[in-house]
Amino acid sequence: MTTKTATERNQPGKLSAPQLPGRPCSIARSLDLLGEKWALLAVREVSFGNHRFNEIARNTGAPRDRLAARLRALVEAGILERRQYQASPARWDYHLTPAGRDLAPVLRALLVWGDRWVSPEPPATLRHGDHDLDLDWICRRCDQAPGDRSVTVHANTPGWDLRGPQPR
Amino acid sequence: MTTKTATERNQPGKLSAPQLPGRPCSIARSLDLLGEKWALLAVREVSFGNHRFNEIARNTGAPRDRLAARLRALVEAGILERRQYQASPARWDYHLTPAGRDLAPVLRALLVWGDRWVSPEPPATLRHGDHDLDLDWICRRCDQAPGDRSVTVHANTPGWDLRGPQPR
Repeated sequence: MTTKTATERNQPGKLSAPQLPGRPCSIARSLDLLGEKWALLAVREVSFGNHRFNEIARNTGAPRDRLAARLRALVEAGILERRQYQASPARWDYHLTPAGRDLAPVLRALLVWGDRWVSPEPPATLRHGDHDLDLDWICRRCDQAPGDRSVTVHANTPGWDLRGPQPR
Repeated sequence: MTTKTATERNQPGKLSAPQLPGRPCSIARSLDLLGEKWALLAVREVSFGNHRFNEIARNTGAPRDRLAARLRALVEAGILERRQYQASPARWDYHLTPAGRDLAPVLRALLVWGDRWVSPEPPATLRHGDHDLDLDWICRRCDQAPGDRSVTVHANTPGWDLRGPQPR
């Protein structure tokens, strides 16, 4: 995770966008905010309804010191929020913000990939009403699935194209 | 990334599934194989057509030693493959395997989230034929978008439910 810098600007409705090396890229910014795997696994547990530190630690298997650091960073980034659930002694738990809830497609994409390529058997099943969820992407503009070959990437940032930095 | 263990079993058509702490989960297995952000950013660059180490290093901004370690791990995991493109002196570059190409939805989900929540302006645009790609998920079983509330998760692994490990 990147420390906030003086050049960082916040926009309404956006989390803070850190200055990063390399290609200007929303994937890079997402991964920087999300840190390494314990962060996304903590979001997984909170989305499963496990809100307390001890539950998140047990179910992720994360080392407690690293998990505590990740949770602090996720709260600071605006992906989780702490809520007090007990006054004396004071106790807090973790809940998803709108930005955290919006990570569901990222977790689902990782779940689908891991089911396909890594797990011997799917350790969990997503149900959609009365049937198994069978996820696919669709383009809302044309109602067609984006076959990989028809999708092209266009760099919008001055000084960069798909090959890399370009002289202006 | 986890070192291979004696208890690890490979299945045909699967990458190796390491033994991990915590909840049995395809998200955790995916993130373990993918390591931290440099790995996914390397996959991004190769998918953009930048196959050589120097190109990947320049466009990700990754420290060269950490990038070299990530590329080795991605090759060992079966997500990238090295191909020799020059004989004398011998030079290799990196290409996506089928498992690597299948990471496109993960990168797209991160791109959509970062465009929505982090980037002041989208640094890149995905085009789909003659229009901007406007990605959404759909369930192939019912042709309906999975609204978050209708999706439920069912743990398939003995000894675990959504709350955590359970006595058998």
